[in-house]
Amino acid sequence: MSVTAPLGFRAAGIAAGIKENGNRDLALVVNEGPSRAAAAVFTANRVKAAPVRWTEQVITGGRLKAVVLNSGGANACTGSPGFQDTHATAEKVAEVLADSAGEIAVCSTGLIGLRLPMEPLLAGIDTAAAELSRDGGLAAADAIRTTDSVAKISFRRGEGGYMIGGMAKGAGMLAPSLATMLVVITTDADLDAAALDRALRAATSVSFDRLDADGCMSTNDTVILMASGATGITPAEQEFTTVLTEVCNDLTRQLLVDAEGASKAITIEVVGAASVRDAVVVGKSIARNNLLKCALHGEDPNWGRVLSAVGTTDAVFDADSLNVAINGIWVCRGGSNGEDRSKVDLRPRDIAITVDLAAGNHSATVWTTDLTAEYVHENSAYSS
Amino acid sequence: MSVTAPLGFRAAGIAAGIKENGNRDLALVVNEGPSRAAAAVFTANRVKAAPVRWTEQVITGGRLKAVVLNSGGANACTGSPGFQDTHATAEKVAEVLADSAGEIAVCSTGLIGLRLPMEPLLAGIDTAAAELSRDGGLAAADAIRTTDSVAKISFRRGEGGYMIGGMAKGAGMLAPSLATMLVVITTDADLDAAALDRALRAATSVSFDRLDADGCMSTNDTVILMASGATGITPAEQEFTTVLTEVCNDLTRQLLVDAEGASKAITIEVVGAASVRDAVVVGKSIARNNLLKCALHGEDPNWGRVLSAVGTTDAVFDADSLNVAINGIWVCRGGSNGEDRSKVDLRPRDIAITVDLAAGNHSATVWTTDLTAEYVHENSAYSS
Repeated sequence: MSVTAPLGFRAAGIAAGIKENGNRDLALVVNEGPSRAAAAVFTANRVKAAPVRWTEQVITGGRLKAVVLNSGGANACTGSPGFQDTHATAEKVAEVLADSAGEIAVCSTGLIGLRLPMEPLLAGIDTAAAELSRDGGLAAADAIRTTDSVAKISFRRGEGGYMIGGMAKGAGMLAPSLATMLVVITTDADLDAAALDRALRAATSVSFDRLDADGCMSTNDTVILMASGATGITPAEQEFTTVLTEVCNDLTRQLLVDAEGASKAITIEVVGAASVRDAVVVGKSIARNNLLKCALHGEDPNWGRVLSAVGTTDAVFDADSLNVAINGIWVCRGGSNGEDRSKVDLRPRDIAITVDLAAGNHSATVWTTDLTAEYVHENSAYSS
Repeated sequence: MSVTAPLGFRAAGIAAGIKENGNRDLALVVNEGPSRAAAAVFTANRVKAAPVRWTEQVITGGRLKAVVLNSGGANACTGSPGFQDTHATAEKVAEVLADSAGEIAVCSTGLIGLRLPMEPLLAGIDTAAAELSRDGGLAAADAIRTTDSVAKISFRRGEGGYMIGGMAKGAGMLAPSLATMLVVITTDADLDAAALDRALRAATSVSFDRLDADGCMSTNDTVILMASGATGITPAEQEFTTVLTEVCNDLTRQLLVDAEGASKAITIEVVGAASVRDAVVVGKSIARNNLLKCALHGEDPNWGRVLSAVGTTDAVFDADSLNVAINGIWVCRGGSNGEDRSKVDLRPRDIAITVDLAAGNHSATVWTTDLTAEYVHENSAYSS
C-alpha cells in the first residue's frame, strides 16, 4: 500500500545497480492526477545535498508530477558535477514520463562525498518507469532503505473516504537527523499547494521534528507530500491535518523502533512547561544526553542525569520544583529524591520519562533511543 | 607537587569512608598566606549542587582559607538537607583551622541525588587536618578521583620564580561537562582577587571550556584559584595569565587522554573563521557529533560527517568553500572530494581535524574523544 494506497499514484522500486550488493536502490512515485499539488519540507542543514537544492527550487511551483529516489549514495558535497547529476536524473524522469523536469523531485541517501554512478541510475529510471504500478508502493519503500532493517509504510483513511499513504527511510536515530530521513506521502484528496504546505508543516513539527532532533539535520532530509485529487474530495484542512499527523506519527514510531543499534524506545514527555517551546527544548536536551542514554541502556533509572540535562536549558523552571517520573515512578520530587528508584522496572523495550517543570500548563513529547555498543559498532564500520 | 608546589599551601588526601571501596575520598587544601585572595568559575548548569551554591556565595568575598573536596557523592539534587550538609562541612573545616566558614570552599563529586554520609565525612576532616603537609598535593589529587584512572597534576614556574600548581579530576569527557570536573589551582604569587578572576576566566575559556563542551555542564563543575602571596612577587597580569593558561592546558590534556572508554584523543582546529566565536561553535558542533565520533573510532576518515556537523551551525561560511584535513590530508576541498581519503592514517591515538571555513582569519581549537563501546559499558553500569 504505502504511497500507492491513495488513488492516482503508481510506484516502482527496482535494483539499478547503484548499491554494490544488488539490493533495490531506485524508487519512482508518479502522480497521475488530475491534480499535482505538492508541498515539501527539507533539512535545516546549511550543507545541503544536490537533490535537496534541486527539489527546493522545484517545489516553489507547488506542483510535482513525480519523485525519484535513490539509496546507495547521498550526492552530497559533490559540487557542481553532483548538481548536474541531479538535474540529469530529473530530465531523464521527465523524458520517460513525457513531462517537465521542473515538476520532478529528486531525493538521494547514502554516503556523503561520492558521485552517483549515473549510467546505471539513468538506465534504472527506464526500468522503474516500465514497472510502475498501483501495487508498487511496497517495492518503492524497500528501495529507499539504507541501514533500515525493514521498509516503513503507513496509510490512513480520512472522512468521506480519501486516503493518505506514506513511506519513510531512516535508521540512525541517535544523532537523529544526522542520518538521512526521506519521507514521501501521497493523498487522493484535493487540496491546493498552500493548504498542503500548512498541513505538512503542522504534522511534521509534532512528529519527525520531535524524533530526538537536536537542531542538527542531515544534508539530505526531505519530506514530500503530493495530492492527486483523484477522489474529488476536499477535506476540511483541520481534519486533513489530523489524519496526516497520524500517518507521520506512525512513520516516526517505525523510525524510532528501527533505530540503529537501539535496545530501548524512549518517550520523553515534558509537562508543566511555561510554553511548548520550553517543553520541546527540555525534551530534546534530555534526548541527546549520552550519559542518560547509556544509563537507560543499562536499565539504571538515573534521574540525576535527567535533571542535569534539564539544567542546561534556558526553559522556565525552579530547580527545587522539578519532578521526574521514570516508567510511572516519581523518582524525583521537588528537585530531590522521590519514590524508591528500585521500584522502576526498565526491562521492557519501551521507556517513558515524564518531566514536570512546574512552571505552566504546556507540554510536548520527544522520542529517542538508548546508546548502545551496537550503535557504536554499526557506525564505526558504515563506510568500510 | 600539584597544589602544594607553590609556597604557602598544605594539603592532604585521606580515606574518610565516603566511598564504599575504601579508597581516598576526602581532600583538604589550605592556604597559609600571607594573602588569601581567590577566584572561581562554576558550572553553567542551572541545576547546581549544594557545594556549588555554597562556594558561589563564599567566593564573592574574594578570599579563601581552604577548599575541602570529597569524591563518592555529588551532593546534588539533595534539597535543603544537602545544603545544610555542605554548610556543616565548611563549619567543620573552619573549626579545625580556627577560621571562618565564610572563607571555606566546598566541592563534591560522585552520584547525583544521594545525601553524603556526614559522620565519616566530618570525622575525615579531623584526620585530613592532622595530615596536612607541604607534600600532600599528590594525595589530595588522588582523593578527588572518581572514574579517573590516574591523578591529574601540573605545575609551572613564572617569571621571577613564583609557582602555579594544580590538580584536576574528571573522566567522562564525551558528554564532557556532564561528568563533574573539579580543579584546584594554587599560586604563591601576590595578586588581588580581581586580577585572579580575570586571569582565571581568560585561562579557562581557552582550555577547560574547549574540552568537548556543548553548553552542557555538570551540576558540580568548579575551578578554584587561590593565591598565598608567599613569594611576595606580583607578576604582570599578562605573564601570569600565560603561565596559568599553560597549567590549565596541561590539565585539560590530561583530562582528555583519560576520558572514559576513549581510544582516540581528537584535536579539532577551526581556521579561517569570521570570528573566534564562530570557530568555537563549529569546533563544538563537530566535537559532539556521535556519528563522526564512531567513524573516527573505526578509523574511517568520514569527512562528510564533519561537513554535516559544520552545516548545522550559524557560523559564516559558504558550503562550496569548506576545506577539511584529517591528520594532514586535505580530504575535502571546496566542499567536495579532495585528496584520496585512503592516504589518511588514523591508527595513532592522536587525531587532528582541521576545518577551514574560508571566511576570515580567526581560529580556535576544541578537543574531544571518540565514541566507543567501552564508553557505553562504563556509563551503563556506573551507578549499579
